[in-house]
Amino acid sequence: MTDTTDVTERARAPGGHDPPEGHEAAEMLAEARRRVGPELRTAVASLPEALRRVALPRLGWGYADGTPTSGGAGAAARPALVLAAVRALGGDPGVAVRAAAAVELTHGRTRLHDGVPGRVAVRGHRSADAVPGEVDAILAGDALQAVAQRLLAEDPHPGAPAAAARLAACVVELCAARHVERALERRHAAEVSAAEWIAVAETGAGALLGCACAIGAVYAGAGPEVADALDGFGRQAGLAFRLIDDVIGIWGDPARTGEPARADLAARRTSLPVAAALASGTPEGAALAGLYDRGPGERDLERMARAVERAGGRDWAQTQAADRMSRALGELARAVPDPERAGGLLALVEVVTRRPADAC
Amino acid sequence: MTDTTDVTERARAPGGHDPPEGHEAAEMLAEARRRVGPELRTAVASLPEALRRVALPRLGWGYADGTPTSGGAGAAARPALVLAAVRALGGDPGVAVRAAAAVELTHGRTRLHDGVPGRVAVRGHRSADAVPGEVDAILAGDALQAVAQRLLAEDPHPGAPAAAARLAACVVELCAARHVERALERRHAAEVSAAEWIAVAETGAGALLGCACAIGAVYAGAGPEVADALDGFGRQAGLAFRLIDDVIGIWGDPARTGEPARADLAARRTSLPVAAALASGTPEGAALAGLYDRGPGERDLERMARAVERAGGRDWAQTQAADRMSRALGELARAVPDPERAGGLLALVEVVTRRPADAC
Repeated sequence: MTDTTDVTERARAPGGHDPPEGHEAAEMLAEARRRVGPELRTAVASLPEALRRVALPRLGWGYADGTPTSGGAGAAARPALVLAAVRALGGDPGVAVRAAAAVELTHGRTRLHDGVPGRVAVRGHRSADAVPGEVDAILAGDALQAVAQRLLAEDPHPGAPAAAARLAACVVELCAARHVERALERRHAAEVSAAEWIAVAETGAGALLGCACAIGAVYAGAGPEVADALDGFGRQAGLAFRLIDDVIGIWGDPARTGEPARADLAARRTSLPVAAALASGTPEGAALAGLYDRGPGERDLERMARAVERAGGRDWAQTQAADRMSRALGELARAVPDPERAGGLLALVEVVTRRPADAC
Repeated sequence: MTDTTDVTERARAPGGHDPPEGHEAAEMLAEARRRVGPELRTAVASLPEALRRVALPRLGWGYADGTPTSGGAGAAARPALVLAAVRALGGDPGVAVRAAAAVELTHGRTRLHDGVPGRVAVRGHRSADAVPGEVDAILAGDALQAVAQRLLAEDPHPGAPAAAARLAACVVELCAARHVERALERRHAAEVSAAEWIAVAETGAGALLGCACAIGAVYAGAGPEVADALDGFGRQAGLAFRLIDDVIGIWGDPARTGEPARADLAARRTSLPVAAALASGTPEGAALAGLYDRGPGERDLERMARAVERAGGRDWAQTQAADRMSRALGELARAVPDPERAGGLLALVEVVTRRPADAC
């Protein structure tokens, strides 16, 4: 966590939750792979072969010939979040396996339609890194969303319709946020406020995580207030970890991140601290904008990192991260009063956004 | 109907159904606009404004500022088909209003993602006419599909989950067929068989119509066999009318079609009779391929029409149309034994595919 450990530690303290344990998250991921993997594989196998061949390699779920990878259907963090939310509320995670698969399939739609970002790109703005979604990827993404819908429509659990409605509302929100984000990207960076960026980042980083938690609540038989609180938790925690990850993307220790120093600056990624610096109206912000526009060289990176810091981008991001984490923990405590039961949820949200993003 | 009337008359006779009456279809369309229009408008109004502004003008459902057109939410034929199927099976169409809106919203996804075809393009292959679906249209289409899913998830009718599952399966099928169709378009026309073209045309022209009928059956409380039969009816009838329309696109009377003679040939549209001619392995087929490749002039059109005919494309299309119509009526009679009750369904399927396509 290098120099942002203080932020997360500070943020976690008020809620009284233990910091997430790596092995706890790893166990939950393994459980999700074991329980949800077969359901995901069956769902993907139900796709016509032509679409399977498009979707699987792009999502890292299988080979170009359409056969799934032996390591399971890939991503497990979002399904694990569904199961963990059910368990946190005293339910049986086994009942939510289908819903957990539906969440991951819906995430597949987003990845295929926004372009599938590489390992690094999960942090910054997507369009800079994304392969433009070509027609076949769009068709495959549509099909994944439809399969998710079918899974929930065929699920006899009494929570399935409410889960389907929440998942659908989440897709609408994600699409709207991506549309707004694209509009922001077309404007001059100095004219977009940090508040505008963070609003779309909240949805992009957190909406599906919140939805996954809320669906878990629904399958645990909780009422809408508890589901809404868990939705808020996932959303705010997702954004908090995104902010922390953005800070790491500039000031992180290459020995720990496994990436070159200042990786996000070298890639000219308008991560949130950079967006805040560009919007700051300071001379450092203007200088940074100039470097971003003309494309920085290797030797500009230190200067840029200092400019982001002096323009207030780093402080802003760390304050926001602390604030969002505090809100997240407040929502979590409201939904799950016993901290012992709730710890795993935070660990899983971190897994989705942390660097290296080996579980996403 | 010009010179294809014989096909439809012949085809309709065995099933014992009256030819569809124009005024009957008009009444059903008006009813669907009245009953389903408000539901559709509410659903579209629930979209974030940014996406509404993308979707409405492209679909002809509203203006660029996001307000709906005063004439209602546009298309009515597919919703009318849902209501008509409920009524044909003795149910109350009022219970299926939400499902009917969901079908039309799902059709909106297809139009936005495949590119919104113009008036003429509903007959031929879409990619020649379609505006490529750009990113915003993709996001708006995703959102429409999600809103359709939400409508059914929130519908307390006991048939809603089965309807949602059928609609989802239909989307998967449409995506797969479109993928296959695009692959066919990339191959040399002489190497693609008429059977390959007609397989994708069956889905493209008929799958959602069949699904609309089947959903009506589900809302009428019918069992899966009846729903499947109505699905087969809509599918086969949709393809039959597409074939008839393709014949009209070459040999139709401009005074009746309101289009120039040989309109499809002038537009180099690989409609089904043309596809059959190109695949025929005849000298006329080869000559036609040459004209298609280099782009025909005004004076080539008569020669091309004769070549399609001599290569067997016209006979093939008319025979296929008769065969498909016969299958459609067989399925219809199985689902709705009383021809009096079933007549309106055929009229509505014709409305969707007929030229001019003023109701789609």
